Amino acid sequence: MSLTERRYVITLGCPDRTGIVAHIASFLAEWGGWIVEAGYHTDPDTGWFFTRQEVRADSLPFGIEELRERFAKVATQLDERADWRVSDTEQRRRVVILVSKEGHCLHDLLGRIGSGELDVDLRAVIGNHPDLGPITEAHGIPFHHVPFPQGTDPHGTDPQAKEAAFGRIRELVDGQAPDAIVLAKFMRVLPPELCRAWQDRALNIHHSFLPSFAGARPYHQAYQRGVKLVGATCHYVTADLDAGPIIEQDVTRVDHTDSVSDMVRKGRDIEKIVLARGLRAHLEDRVLVHDQRTVVF
Amino acid sequence: MSLTERRYVITLGCPDRTGIVAHIASFLAEWGGWIVEAGYHTDPDTGWFFTRQEVRADSLPFGIEELRERFAKVATQLDERADWRVSDTEQRRRVVILVSKEGHCLHDLLGRIGSGELDVDLRAVIGNHPDLGPITEAHGIPFHHVPFPQGTDPHGTDPQAKEAAFGRIRELVDGQAPDAIVLAKFMRVLPPELCRAWQDRALNIHHSFLPSFAGARPYHQAYQRGVKLVGATCHYVTADLDAGPIIEQDVTRVDHTDSVSDMVRKGRDIEKIVLARGLRAHLEDRVLVHDQRTVVF
Amino acid sequence: MSLTERRYVITLGCPDRTGIVAHIASFLAEWGGWIVEAGYHTDPDTGWFFTRQEVRADSLPFGIEELRERFAKVATQLDERADWRVSDTEQRRRVVILVSKEGHCLHDLLGRIGSGELDVDLRAVIGNHPDLGPITEAHGIPFHHVPFPQGTDPHGTDPQAKEAAFGRIRELVDGQAPDAIVLAKFMRVLPPELCRAWQDRALNIHHSFLPSFAGARPYHQAYQRGVKLVGATCHYVTADLDAGPIIEQDVTRVDHTDSVSDMVRKGRDIEKIVLARGLRAHLEDRVLVHDQRTVVF
Amino acid sequence: MSLTERRYVITLGCPDRTGIVAHIASFLAEWGGWIVEAGYHTDPDTGWFFTRQEVRADSLPFGIEELRERFAKVATQLDERADWRVSDTEQRRRVVILVSKEGHCLHDLLGRIGSGELDVDLRAVIGNHPDLGPITEAHGIPFHHVPFPQGTDPHGTDPQAKEAAFGRIRELVDGQAPDAIVLAKFMRVLPPELCRAWQDRALNIHHSFLPSFAGARPYHQAYQRGVKLVGATCHYVTADLDAGPIIEQDVTRVDHTDSVSDMVRKGRDIEKIVLARGLRAHLEDRVLVHDQRTVVF
Repeated sequence: MSLTERRYVITLGCPDRTGIVAHIASFLAEWGGWIVEAGYHTDPDTGWFFTRQEVRADSLPFGIEELRERFAKVATQLDERADWRVSDTEQRRRVVILVSKEGHCLHDLLGRIGSGELDVDLRAVIGNHPDLGPITEAHGIPFHHVPFPQGTDPHGTDPQAKEAAFGRIRELVDGQAPDAIVLAKFMRVLPPELCRAWQDRALNIHHSFLPSFAGARPYHQAYQRGVKLVGATCHYVTADLDAGPIIEQDVTRVDHTDSVSDMVRKGRDIEKIVLARGLRAHLEDRVLVHDQRTVVF
Repeated sequence: MSLTERRYVITLGCPDRTGIVAHIASFLAEWGGWIVEAGYHTDPDTGWFFTRQEVRADSLPFGIEELRERFAKVATQLDERADWRVSDTEQRRRVVILVSKEGHCLHDLLGRIGSGELDVDLRAVIGNHPDLGPITEAHGIPFHHVPFPQGTDPHGTDPQAKEAAFGRIRELVDGQAPDAIVLAKFMRVLPPELCRAWQDRALNIHHSFLPSFAGARPYHQAYQRGVKLVGATCHYVTADLDAGPIIEQDVTRVDHTDSVSDMVRKGRDIEKIVLARGLRAHLEDRVLVHDQRTVVF
Repeated sequence: MSLTERRYVITLGCPDRTGIVAHIASFLAEWGGWIVEAGYHTDPDTGWFFTRQEVRADSLPFGIEELRERFAKVATQLDERADWRVSDTEQRRRVVILVSKEGHCLHDLLGRIGSGELDVDLRAVIGNHPDLGPITEAHGIPFHHVPFPQGTDPHGTDPQAKEAAFGRIRELVDGQAPDAIVLAKFMRVLPPELCRAWQDRALNIHHSFLPSFAGARPYHQAYQRGVKLVGATCHYVTADLDAGPIIEQDVTRVDHTDSVSDMVRKGRDIEKIVLARGLRAHLEDRVLVHDQRTVVF
Repeated sequence: MSLTERRYVITLGCPDRTGIVAHIASFLAEWGGWIVEAGYHTDPDTGWFFTRQEVRADSLPFGIEELRERFAKVATQLDERADWRVSDTEQRRRVVILVSKEGHCLHDLLGRIGSGELDVDLRAVIGNHPDLGPITEAHGIPFHHVPFPQGTDPHGTDPQAKEAAFGRIRELVDGQAPDAIVLAKFMRVLPPELCRAWQDRALNIHHSFLPSFAGARPYHQAYQRGVKLVGATCHYVTADLDAGPIIEQDVTRVDHTDSVSDMVRKGRDIEKIVLARGLRAHLEDRVLVHDQRTVVF
């Protein structure tokens, strides 16, 4: 995104051993591949090796399909458990956003897309309330309203109606084959099968510095505890609520003069930034997940 | 803004002496005034005293006009040089925004207004380019395009045409009697007479941590100097370019991997937040100016 | 501390009602009291009012004893539940520090005291290990080694010996009548009776951004969870472990390249600063506690 | 430093071209070299390539001298302008500190060394005032007092006496062959010949966020300008005052309640941290300089 020249991005994770860097670098050098950016990391706990490399597309004598074929052999030689991916920066990433009523994250993402900062293909916004339809459509983006049954708890009380609503959402999302599904204050817990189906593609923004104040009403919890900072966390969605791999976090200072609604307001600025940073890192293939933790190159 | 009950906000600056707090507090107590928030400060250099107080409107037996009349006497008794103001939180603030082509700050402010976070009466957006008209109008806000003559320098080369353009802008702005004129990446230097006319009402966002990198292309300057943080500054506009009283500043970390365009992108998040914080403080009458410096209660 | 002229500091907490500010300010004005700094706050949840005021000592016609007598009447008139205190900035604060083996916080405090930044009367350092004796004594401060019985758990296994050790510590501490007892990485849980005896005087530094990672080995917990920031918390010690009123917190960024020992190192810089800030606020009577939360003026 | 196993650190800078990474990685792989940490960067402006690699010493079949001989050939093959270095993490770095009267940075460094956090061989502290001798010697470090002639300006008025004093300092410093010469609030401008002799080895801490407030009394300048953040900068010393390559910077928030002396106090915490971070990065060979800017791996 916002790159001046076309690049291929290679990411790979595998058990660490001597010579991995040399193996990959030699493969690229053999074909004249010009590495513009490279990151390497080994997790000392798990012994897992991670790398991400950006190669100038015009430095290679073949296209991405042949690069994939050739790199597949390199990766297999390294380790049969190698988990790798090759992508093209000229391929615009497809995104779907899920929202509820609260609009600050959606407004922020639409503004970033509208101003050209975030160069993605936003396929659709799906809301369980109709409130954010007009602003979405003013940006020329399709909006789908999928109502959920009302109940006394935030997760609804009519299991069948809820299941149907999630089924409809899944259909709408999967129809777009998105690279990222963004829960931008969606305020509903995804059912386990959707967490699995969208693994490492569904990003949530949680309005606390996790693991503090997981669950409901984190700003109220923060106020009661009298903390001096409030934060936000962007993480991959997993079936274990608010416990998915953390991509990005940040905090902002509060003090005794801040009411809960002041905390909410200050926290929103952090939520927007943390979500935007996390989404950008995800879409640039900078986030590698292993053992419930992320490496963000 | 976002206050639960109606309040009157009293701000006052005057030479410091014993008994000011008692004088004001006794006046309020006499009429049953319930002080909900109060700030006091004395600048040791200039010996100038500053205060800002929020009083519950329903605790006083009279309305804002009578409060103003009565407080005028209190202020005069304190010091004839006293500079004071009484405002009403239920009176929505009137705002006009000036823009050029770059939209991130406008998108951000429109999003804050649209989501209800910033409860202001945005009267108009004026652009010296037409680019940001559609998004403005999508939010239901009037947009005025006031073209400037093209020249080789950023300030234009046809003095008469430029003067005419600024005349048109002044007409459009003053016709709305705004509480704040926001230069949201307006990218043009206001003529001295507009600086004077809009003194302490015109807010600019500068894309550096002033006084570093005043003037043009601050991110390029920052890149060349190799700084490890970039920032933004919200300040009142004065005839002395980029030297007006600072309302708010913040920074974000950069490193050697960040190109100028990465710095621009990271800096924009800081610009948006710094401008939004500065504007909020201004509209809530939290910013008192004296001797080219601000007190922000 | 580091004040240019002598001041009396008045702090008061009581149920909020109209006229408190006027009442106190009028009392001070009547005697010519020059308020140099004043803070006011009302907690909307509990309806509790807090104030802290600094008055120039030379502006009053009497000394601190008479000020205390006269203010006692003012406070009683306000509310019989009023909780107040009057102190003198020329009265150096007495401090005792408790340590174990880890020296970074002690080194930092000794450095601040040695360089004159923190102008306190450090009466003694007490260690449950002898390691930090030499550096303490090099600064001319008495060091007391109070060994604890060794056990398989961090809290020791010989209840009687432990009780005796805490008895000895209490004797050494209480003999100095300190304004602050600082647990600078003391690494032991105070028994409930000491928590009570030293209520609102004993400050602990916890090496996490509480309530995240309360309890043992917070950096290991943080590493396992993959958080992107680590922090520290300075709080008053209560019988409820790591749950006392929070005085100050801060965080610093970490990423996947940081091992647990890197987090420990980066976190230590935050621990030192957070403890120093918290201690300064406490000693300047800036921290008012009510209902397990603090107001820090 | 604080590494669990011995490592060799290779740094190299040279004009960028295809295959550098492969060339170095293949050389290491050929000998079984296990790369534990690797950083790569190319400056798009200057086309200069930078790398830093940590290799487990026990993975290579030869010692550091042979590694240097062999790597010299690799580097020459890459480019005759290549600027490289191979170091050994078990070789403790030699440090000399220059001070004046102000002790906070020295106290901080002594504390970090004393607590084992900074594992360096501090050879000597040299002061142009005797004040910091006792604390230095209490840590078992030799202290040398080199008095400077008194004058009306901070740089002294007797050129010959000043030259003699700097001659004595150079003698004391060079006698230790230090890896780092730390100006920890030395408050004197090094003569150009010392800047040259100690190029890329002399680190200064400046008490402002450069380039803001270069020169004298930065906190007074910051106060006058009314900035909302104050900062500190660690940079290499060059003959161009306060303009050397920046290694690290940070800031802390101030507001209108902060006097100049409050800014000084808050700024000191930033100075200490920024200097400690910069020194650590320098000693771990993480800082590569090219064209007046740094890459900090």
